[in-house]
Amino acid sequence: METLSVALGERSYPIYIGGGLLAQLGALLPKLAGKQVLVVTNTTIAPLYLEKVQSALHGYEASSLVLPDGEQYKTLDTLNQIYTALLERKHSRSTTLIALGGGVVGDITGYAAASYQRGVDFIQIPTTLLSQVDSSVGGKTGVNHPLGKNMIGAFHQPKAVIADTDCLSTLPERELSAGLAEVIKYGLIRDTQFLDWIERNMSLLRGHQSEALGYAIKRSCEIKAEVVAADEREGGVRAILNLGHTFGHAIEADQGYGQWLHGEAVGAGMVMAAVLSQKEGYLSQADIDRTQAIIEAAGLPVAGPPNMTENDYLERMAVDKKNIDARIRLVLLQALGDAVVTTNFDQTNLRATLDDCTA
Amino acid sequence: METLSVALGERSYPIYIGGGLLAQLGALLPKLAGKQVLVVTNTTIAPLYLEKVQSALHGYEASSLVLPDGEQYKTLDTLNQIYTALLERKHSRSTTLIALGGGVVGDITGYAAASYQRGVDFIQIPTTLLSQVDSSVGGKTGVNHPLGKNMIGAFHQPKAVIADTDCLSTLPERELSAGLAEVIKYGLIRDTQFLDWIERNMSLLRGHQSEALGYAIKRSCEIKAEVVAADEREGGVRAILNLGHTFGHAIEADQGYGQWLHGEAVGAGMVMAAVLSQKEGYLSQADIDRTQAIIEAAGLPVAGPPNMTENDYLERMAVDKKNIDARIRLVLLQALGDAVVTTNFDQTNLRATLDDCTA
Repeated sequence: METLSVALGERSYPIYIGGGLLAQLGALLPKLAGKQVLVVTNTTIAPLYLEKVQSALHGYEASSLVLPDGEQYKTLDTLNQIYTALLERKHSRSTTLIALGGGVVGDITGYAAASYQRGVDFIQIPTTLLSQVDSSVGGKTGVNHPLGKNMIGAFHQPKAVIADTDCLSTLPERELSAGLAEVIKYGLIRDTQFLDWIERNMSLLRGHQSEALGYAIKRSCEIKAEVVAADEREGGVRAILNLGHTFGHAIEADQGYGQWLHGEAVGAGMVMAAVLSQKEGYLSQADIDRTQAIIEAAGLPVAGPPNMTENDYLERMAVDKKNIDARIRLVLLQALGDAVVTTNFDQTNLRATLDDCTA
Repeated sequence: METLSVALGERSYPIYIGGGLLAQLGALLPKLAGKQVLVVTNTTIAPLYLEKVQSALHGYEASSLVLPDGEQYKTLDTLNQIYTALLERKHSRSTTLIALGGGVVGDITGYAAASYQRGVDFIQIPTTLLSQVDSSVGGKTGVNHPLGKNMIGAFHQPKAVIADTDCLSTLPERELSAGLAEVIKYGLIRDTQFLDWIERNMSLLRGHQSEALGYAIKRSCEIKAEVVAADEREGGVRAILNLGHTFGHAIEADQGYGQWLHGEAVGAGMVMAAVLSQKEGYLSQADIDRTQAIIEAAGLPVAGPPNMTENDYLERMAVDKKNIDARIRLVLLQALGDAVVTTNFDQTNLRATLDDCTA
């Protein structure tokens, strides 16, 4: 087992990564604030892991809530189901929520914890590659609004993250690929050595080889933890973690949440960011080819959906959270491994990029 | 004009109190994060003061949203109307929300600001006595759930509070009385000299005399600012600000939000807290008589609604935010001017109190 720490002063917390962690959950859980616990999970994950988690909570007043599975349920309505369960079961401010599942369960449960009685504790047990490398780390929580992804939310750090790599053995191909999009992102924004490693180990990763996945998760969490520790509330550098996400969020919202997986949309979005970076004079054609090749090798789309127009993108991108007043801000690559956040790019280049990258 | 400061480090902010402040709003506003501003108000307040506020925002991209008036609209649905307006108007994370109205507008707008894009700035312009002395100060924001008041929310401090006492000239009697409940509360929990002053000046206060109201607001905000600065997130002493509120919230929720005004429910609730304090051996009969007399003099009820049973109260009180696990915590008075938060009271005394205080 690897243990990382996210260094955020009194809000610091550990990330445990390894095989067989669910079986030793009782020993890994931090001291809880009170006796009440609500485990929130979904219909896919509950039959696989809920019993294991519940048996580790012997001695607590623990119960569970099973949500429908899918990004289309990451809404205020689903959030309200969690509040209702907590209130019906008379959970006090000393309760602890446990998010058992992928990014949707983590984001919505974390936000329920941030806002129930103005804030209670929560613990992340991410069960997908995407959530193990990305959404369970860093304290971003929230739900979608029909007009924009993650538009409602809070920064709320978990008390611990427990990433059992054994959970990935049951992960469908498509979701594994979606998780690899974020792994690749860490290489592209910050670490070309890691990018090399991903390229060399792609077939092991896609073959669910646990040692390779374990290293990819550890290195991804390390990079994310470093960036988050430097800028917890995204006043500056943290925004580089959104490489490809502004384009990707536009795709997800336009196609309807749950149609394109988040990682798939980010895959295509990272190609768009790279192409725009080239048009702005930063990247070479070889850099673009390399970026496309690794994203394609991960089993991800390298272009947006055929039915999306330039204006569809621009309309959606105008409400991105990184924007200042009404100016679109994007993460571009000055070089592979060196990302920058900027409003300083040519609108014509942006439009040309959207054209180039539509399938 | 009086200027107080709420001392919360980098989250410190000023409270301006006085007559004619809306006319000089442009000079009082702090530097805003960006050009976008959304003024949120309600159907009662908009015709009275919205134009004044908008004219002070010359040079900004300011627009407004008018909500229905009443506690029954302090819901997730109304909150979602604010998110939709912000997204349709493409407001970025550098927007500023301005809450123009009473406690409901302040709480819901503050919570929209806490959660829109994970947090944007907001400014409070409270227009009722209740909101000027209480809900606009201290950073508690949120909405109600059908199963409990203020169960969904966040701590989010405003950038400034501008309390124009001239707004109180249009305040209906019933709402003035409701605001006086919180004024009396500050005396009861912390300052018997202030309690004396309120008793002596009750007829001036109820007669809308602006000098008396100005002093009552200033002294109330001073006490609240002191308590909040000592305990921003209510880990301890801050909970004394909830004197009478656990009983009061039960009444409001049971009767249906908007039927009993918050201040009315708190008035009856403070009598209940005093009576239980007597049964627990803290207060004398003279203290109870004095407490009842001042609450009655303010035009407030001194008993709960006739159709509420002991069990109605206990069921509602079991989900109060102050509770630890499932144990009810209450604010009691060790003496007038000296409040304490405790789970240590006799259940039989609590039941007897509820019986005694039902009309």
